[in-house]
Amino acid sequence: MENNQHIKNKIHSNREFMKSKFAEEGYESDQQKQLPQPPLTKAPIGNNSIKLTKEFSSLIKESDYLKLVQERKSQRVYKKESITLDQLSFLLWTTQGIKEIKGDNYATIRTVPSAGARHAFETYLAVLNVDGLEKGIYHYLPLDHSIELITEVDDIENKVSNSLCEQKFAAKSAVVFYYSAVAYRSEWRYVLESHKVMLIDAGHVMQNLYLSCGAIGCGTCAIAAFNQELADNLLKLNGKDEFVIYAAPIGNV
Amino acid sequence: MENNQHIKNKIHSNREFMKSKFAEEGYESDQQKQLPQPPLTKAPIGNNSIKLTKEFSSLIKESDYLKLVQERKSQRVYKKESITLDQLSFLLWTTQGIKEIKGDNYATIRTVPSAGARHAFETYLAVLNVDGLEKGIYHYLPLDHSIELITEVDDIENKVSNSLCEQKFAAKSAVVFYYSAVAYRSEWRYVLESHKVMLIDAGHVMQNLYLSCGAIGCGTCAIAAFNQELADNLLKLNGKDEFVIYAAPIGNV
Repeated sequence: MENNQHIKNKIHSNREFMKSKFAEEGYESDQQKQLPQPPLTKAPIGNNSIKLTKEFSSLIKESDYLKLVQERKSQRVYKKESITLDQLSFLLWTTQGIKEIKGDNYATIRTVPSAGARHAFETYLAVLNVDGLEKGIYHYLPLDHSIELITEVDDIENKVSNSLCEQKFAAKSAVVFYYSAVAYRSEWRYVLESHKVMLIDAGHVMQNLYLSCGAIGCGTCAIAAFNQELADNLLKLNGKDEFVIYAAPIGNV
Repeated sequence: MENNQHIKNKIHSNREFMKSKFAEEGYESDQQKQLPQPPLTKAPIGNNSIKLTKEFSSLIKESDYLKLVQERKSQRVYKKESITLDQLSFLLWTTQGIKEIKGDNYATIRTVPSAGARHAFETYLAVLNVDGLEKGIYHYLPLDHSIELITEVDDIENKVSNSLCEQKFAAKSAVVFYYSAVAYRSEWRYVLESHKVMLIDAGHVMQNLYLSCGAIGCGTCAIAAFNQELADNLLKLNGKDEFVIYAAPIGNV
């Protein structure tokens, strides 16, 4: 019973988290205090990034928006074949691509909306079967639309599956997208309101990923049920300032 | 300083909220306890609903998915003209339309993804300028793709604007979409993990709303900064079991 009461209290506070407190704010944000803005994106770790294309016309198998919406479904079975670097490029561009930088490095304008254009996410890839890429963990560098190898990983298929609460179908995909939140990027402006809007923003991104997969003959299945510690470790995130919030395996279908 | 520490603690707990606890669950859900499942959708209050079309071909001005993604932007200025009921229908269908009912009334399969197909949302409309509709608050009935008038509202433009933290541009739109969460619909299955995934799900929906607006010559601007109490009151929600989580004014652009 005590346990039940504990869960009831948590449900109450979780519901409160979902609500808007914008009308009640009683504190200054770091932006209002004129503290320096954090970087718009995470910097590369080296200088060997792999440049990606923005020429997509030859990739598109289905361009009709309404058809893509109506036929979208979560797919957990993928062909045992590689995807191309250009397919990967399309998926990265349409989910986190930077179209413009506003003001004096104030904000990125991307192919998805984000509250206050804060764009708190980084995209990591567990590459399992992509033409021309070694298996490993890669990081998307949206400022120059390229990817960078972060680390090779022994037995990556098992580590991917473990990071996703043993959802073994994920290890049979060609690539797993992991989205992390760099929390302060949104907290700087929205403080206690930032966390709700970052989660909503993750949904904007994932919806484009679903539709983009449909457009190029791929399938995906969004995964919120992951093991936080294993997922953060796999991507070498500290799990405090930056941590995984959503994931999605992708393959041809 | 005390206040600062309070905010730091809240930021810490908010970040924890964003993380996955699926690997740590130590309790049974109401679904696991075999407690009855809540209704898939909220019932109509009367029997005068207005049936909507699913014939959209004549409405579409831009069908190309990649173009819609690349040209999507938040729009806060709308033409001073009505939208049609068919445009409204398209926006409702592509954001919350039910394509199928799975199992013995177990789940709805919709035009957007939702964790565990819980689909905890209801769509309300503040109709300001839609052909053939009186101004007022309407509710979308996805099971038969219709809308129902919930209540007329005096001075609806001001109440809409007040509910959205005085963002006056919203009252100059043709219709404002308000998404509520019926929290138990997801809690029944996911308990303490439900609230994170409901917020993410709201992002899936909003992204389709953005793209769908682009497809039919409309524009929108997602709004998370609303006044919780005024928004809930406007839609006649009790603010406990069901409460607004996201909003979006829409008009021709």
